[in-house]
Amino acid sequence: MRNIKLTIQYDGTKYKGWQRLGNENNTIQGKIEKVLGKITGENIELIGSGRTDAGVHAYNQIANFKTNSNISNEKLLEDCYKFLPLDIVIKKAEDVDDRFHARYNALEKIYTYKIYNDSTHDVFKRKYSYHVKEELNIEKMRESAFVFIGKHDFKSFTALKSKKKSTVREIYSINIIKNNADIDIVFRGNGFLYKMVRILAGTLIEAGLGKITPEDIKNIMEQKDRSMAPPTAPAHGLFLSEVIY
Amino acid sequence: MRNIKLTIQYDGTKYKGWQRLGNENNTIQGKIEKVLGKITGENIELIGSGRTDAGVHAYNQIANFKTNSNISNEKLLEDCYKFLPLDIVIKKAEDVDDRFHARYNALEKIYTYKIYNDSTHDVFKRKYSYHVKEELNIEKMRESAFVFIGKHDFKSFTALKSKKKSTVREIYSINIIKNNADIDIVFRGNGFLYKMVRILAGTLIEAGLGKITPEDIKNIMEQKDRSMAPPTAPAHGLFLSEVIY
Repeated sequence: MRNIKLTIQYDGTKYKGWQRLGNENNTIQGKIEKVLGKITGENIELIGSGRTDAGVHAYNQIANFKTNSNISNEKLLEDCYKFLPLDIVIKKAEDVDDRFHARYNALEKIYTYKIYNDSTHDVFKRKYSYHVKEELNIEKMRESAFVFIGKHDFKSFTALKSKKKSTVREIYSINIIKNNADIDIVFRGNGFLYKMVRILAGTLIEAGLGKITPEDIKNIMEQKDRSMAPPTAPAHGLFLSEVIY
Repeated sequence: MRNIKLTIQYDGTKYKGWQRLGNENNTIQGKIEKVLGKITGENIELIGSGRTDAGVHAYNQIANFKTNSNISNEKLLEDCYKFLPLDIVIKKAEDVDDRFHARYNALEKIYTYKIYNDSTHDVFKRKYSYHVKEELNIEKMRESAFVFIGKHDFKSFTALKSKKKSTVREIYSINIIKNNADIDIVFRGNGFLYKMVRILAGTLIEAGLGKITPEDIKNIMEQKDRSMAPPTAPAHGLFLSEVIY
């Protein structure tokens, strides 16, 4: 049996997120599985590196699936390109070791949260960045971002309800890159909890607006209480940029 | 009476172009005139620097209108931002000399034609660039672009039907900028004929594919016959970038 790894780009605007959900057909996983089923004649189960929420985008989502089909990867890509909607593109398909698992083997994930910081929005970026009118202080954002670096319990910064699972994660770096009105916040870490990147982005925005200090953030982190942290930043600014194995 | 100059950004995807047309309500001029009418309580006629076709975008379209209203330009911008659809944003409003006319006074126009040159399209750029699968040879495109520089009769490169009007125009420069899969063709000239930029872009694409040489283009130019020139490149790759006065 073959194990095929896919690199996938998608515009999440129209979808209910990555994960197939019962009868909900409008998910990225669901759309791709349907096309792969058509191509291989098999019932395909696609394993993603992780879920992305409704409205979240991906430059390079990684997924894998098992198949007995002997279709060439070139032809597979061609057929996927033909049958998938315009807002989902498989960029690469490659045979990998049988043991490769897109979720379990992920060592690092890179997410980018995009902000457009000007008095009016940019019509071409309105679906792919979060428009913040008030001027953000980048230095203040960087100082606050520093609090998150390293291994911490991010319980205050997740919408995860389960009490059993660990909420400890390690963030390797947070880079804040400003280019005129565009501000990209690039998060690298070994994994992120449910809605964690968007809550961290929301927190850094409040820091940039001067509403919250690094000291406040340290306190929120210690409380381990989601209700203490600032609101979740909207989904359309978030991109899963890369998954490292 | 005041004369107000506007700088306008729009995503042309959904519109029938700039120019208001009889009962056709779905034009950029029509949308803005309606909002300005609401704000000033007057019947506003907006003069654009030129028309853009259905589906063509603008970073900085310029227009002017006359009004007796004494609304501040700040408040005018605010109200426009509130009432206009999300794909049209007035970036600037300023009082100008009574004689300023957005069309007659334009000295130079800059258009950018955007191409995405890769085997698959980019989901985030699919509405704002033309996807060309086959690899384009940039040097060949540059050699062919050189033929267009200067003052020429562009009759072969316009869809203009009128036989009375002059089809002579001057192109100051054509810059072709490649950045990975993105190719921008930047046209600067004293004015462009109906569909001219898109036909020039279509011609340069054929040059980049090796289907046409600079010598062929010289011949086409001499024939003064539209049917000789390559097809018009699609509207969604074209941006009116700047108008210089």
